[in-house]
Amino acid sequence: MVNEKTFNDVVALMKTSGFVFQGSEIYGGLANTWDYGPLGVELKNNIKNAWWKRFIQESEHNVGIQSAILMNPSVWVASGHVGGFSDPLMDCKACKARFRADQLIEDATNGEVNPAGMSNEEMETFIKEHEIACPKCGAHDFTEIRQFNLMFKTFQGVLEDAKSTIYLRPETAQGIFVNFKNIQRTMRKKLPFGIGQIGKSFRNEITPGNFIFRTREFEQMELEFFCKPGEDLKWFDFYTNRCMQFLKDLGLKEENIRLRAHSAEELSHYSNATSDIEYLYPTPIGWGELWGIADRTDFDLKAHQTESKQSLEYFDQEANEKYLPYVIEPSVGVERLLLALMCEAYDEEKISDKETRLVLRLHPSLAPYKAAVLPLSKKLSEQADRVFHQLANQFSITYDESQSIGKRYRRQDSIGTPYCVTVDFETENDGCVTVRDRDTMEQVRVPLEKLNAYLEERVRF
Amino acid sequence: MVNEKTFNDVVALMKTSGFVFQGSEIYGGLANTWDYGPLGVELKNNIKNAWWKRFIQESEHNVGIQSAILMNPSVWVASGHVGGFSDPLMDCKACKARFRADQLIEDATNGEVNPAGMSNEEMETFIKEHEIACPKCGAHDFTEIRQFNLMFKTFQGVLEDAKSTIYLRPETAQGIFVNFKNIQRTMRKKLPFGIGQIGKSFRNEITPGNFIFRTREFEQMELEFFCKPGEDLKWFDFYTNRCMQFLKDLGLKEENIRLRAHSAEELSHYSNATSDIEYLYPTPIGWGELWGIADRTDFDLKAHQTESKQSLEYFDQEANEKYLPYVIEPSVGVERLLLALMCEAYDEEKISDKETRLVLRLHPSLAPYKAAVLPLSKKLSEQADRVFHQLANQFSITYDESQSIGKRYRRQDSIGTPYCVTVDFETENDGCVTVRDRDTMEQVRVPLEKLNAYLEERVRF
Repeated sequence: MVNEKTFNDVVALMKTSGFVFQGSEIYGGLANTWDYGPLGVELKNNIKNAWWKRFIQESEHNVGIQSAILMNPSVWVASGHVGGFSDPLMDCKACKARFRADQLIEDATNGEVNPAGMSNEEMETFIKEHEIACPKCGAHDFTEIRQFNLMFKTFQGVLEDAKSTIYLRPETAQGIFVNFKNIQRTMRKKLPFGIGQIGKSFRNEITPGNFIFRTREFEQMELEFFCKPGEDLKWFDFYTNRCMQFLKDLGLKEENIRLRAHSAEELSHYSNATSDIEYLYPTPIGWGELWGIADRTDFDLKAHQTESKQSLEYFDQEANEKYLPYVIEPSVGVERLLLALMCEAYDEEKISDKETRLVLRLHPSLAPYKAAVLPLSKKLSEQADRVFHQLANQFSITYDESQSIGKRYRRQDSIGTPYCVTVDFETENDGCVTVRDRDTMEQVRVPLEKLNAYLEERVRF
Repeated sequence: MVNEKTFNDVVALMKTSGFVFQGSEIYGGLANTWDYGPLGVELKNNIKNAWWKRFIQESEHNVGIQSAILMNPSVWVASGHVGGFSDPLMDCKACKARFRADQLIEDATNGEVNPAGMSNEEMETFIKEHEIACPKCGAHDFTEIRQFNLMFKTFQGVLEDAKSTIYLRPETAQGIFVNFKNIQRTMRKKLPFGIGQIGKSFRNEITPGNFIFRTREFEQMELEFFCKPGEDLKWFDFYTNRCMQFLKDLGLKEENIRLRAHSAEELSHYSNATSDIEYLYPTPIGWGELWGIADRTDFDLKAHQTESKQSLEYFDQEANEKYLPYVIEPSVGVERLLLALMCEAYDEEKISDKETRLVLRLHPSLAPYKAAVLPLSKKLSEQADRVFHQLANQFSITYDESQSIGKRYRRQDSIGTPYCVTVDFETENDGCVTVRDRDTMEQVRVPLEKLNAYLEERVRF
């Protein structure tokens, strides 16, 4: 029997085949940073392109933006990040280990108690009353809770003082809110419309981890969809469905995704509705958050209007009235989605009594390479080279002339390449190549002049 | 007569039509940061895709990477950035204005003296002897030169001390060097091969400016091409030509680009050859650096090998010997290239005695929108909507049903849209639309089932 895949199997594949390396590895790394290798960067780009296509390009409502990572610090005052974007930290006085108080409670109660609504005092009391011990040394002696802000600080200009302190953005969303009027005006947009952004964000997490699941530096794909108040719940449903459909279209199986609506206590005070799409990561991870969809009402625009003293109201010509739009925010991390897609695609397939093959069943549009060009013999490398260039003009392609054809097939299977294109001794005579399908392992003969079109219709998203 | 275009004309177009906004504008901005609007982000993405296609996808040698912005600080010790990546600053004691000493000298001598090879002492002496005055107040009383490091600092983890200090990368190149062995091994690469990266870098410049020409936060497209020592100058020439050809293919006119080889004194001690490709930006900017191509020998790999104590040598099977490869580095900034392309494309065309049109002659592959769908009347919006979706499945498209068709053509001309697709009252009968060409203004009738293919062959890079 083929063993059930584990999270570690997927991580091992990614680390050994050019998807992900430890960041700054030759220097012993830098905690929790990762570099994406040749396959990882292609996969990431394909994921971002698929999101952009579905949520920006194909939508008659939505447009894109790329705002700066470094923003005026007032942005983070208005958004609440300067005041409230922090973790409640406690140190064990005995062993000096550092913990998040909310995680201590969650872990000690096996997730039965949700500390989301608790104040610091309530958490401290809970920990004392329930005699929660230090998970590292077992002592019962914690410091009081200190709030630790998760924004990375830096200094712009020559002086390092409070006045020159700026932050690395902890989310891409605020870059959209502060440009709401700029974009509405220059693009002459009418409600409803959305603004999407893909870009890096940074959070100085105290307890990052699980490989690339939670990292201090990460890429977000966020859409802020602005609509008339009262129409928000309709659009909330629309985007919830759209996100679910997108995930299924990319290959996540129905039974591995679920929608979890936030309970009344979990819900932010300003939100009319919030749901998380969760994915069932392989053992031992289990269900984990993948995509958050929130109806944020006019909370953000109102906060920026107040702080900046600039009107962010929209004039609704039809209704002849001015108001602050409501906003629906679907927000997903590129790396976390990448991880889910890799977990889903990983498959150890038994193909005979003795043989198993590792095959990465990525959607062809996501595969790092759309095809591998394989000359059957090194004598054919000149011809194969022409085929490579014919395809490379249109697709991301790899070339492999080492080892037996069987071994080369297996290697391509394991990195998700949907098609292997073999140039053989017949190719010169009949102008055809053999195209092998990753999933079915079936082979067909395709004329060279039809090869690009053959691939094109099979690798589109 | 149509006036000669100026730099400010181009900036004005970009600021008013959705290409670029001042960063954090509603808060009065944050010095020298810029946000890319709906048109700007599409143009940026198209430029990055064109570079990736030409330098990674189409090359049988090259692969990509995306390394982290936050790296182990030892990386920047090895690279020389901690010790030497700094500007020589002087303050005017009279008016407290701050200057770069080398720029003071360059400006005061109208560029006739190149301070690149001077020590701080030599610069101080030069400024005194030539009685260079403060450009702001005219005084002759400067402080001594202090070296100011250009790397942005931040702190990872809970403590803000020297031990937790890390930097925002000032270039993407080092993320490639430290992964040289990882990639060579996992991708089983043989020399010569290259590793390319597109990503953000940060430099705490004292005197940034000229709109998006020099900014503290910017995107780089860097290739590090590794080869056998002795073959480096051949590859240096190869990539110099390839970069020049790429720029011409994207539409920069031959007379507006020039290659400037670094003189012996300018050349870094480790470099065998370095050239800059310069572009003639419109008045009053003039020639400015666009693309640097450097033969960096084994300087970087040697530095990392020494600092990390990890062998970065390559084993050459054919020659049966181990050595550190040499490296050719073509490095270009996305924003600077975007600016050059916008300057080149900007055109005020006289089309009659009385009429001038603003047309942005971007290469169709770079245009933010490949087509605009325009219903001749609002009564046709249902049909036009179908055409929009037919095209939006494949291309970035816009839709406009306001104002007269002539005005809509002009607006699309001014943002570079190569094709306007008009849905008229005949469309329902003959299944055709009118396609108008941005540059020739000619119109042809195209059947809807051939429309995607018609555009596809015209907007490819």
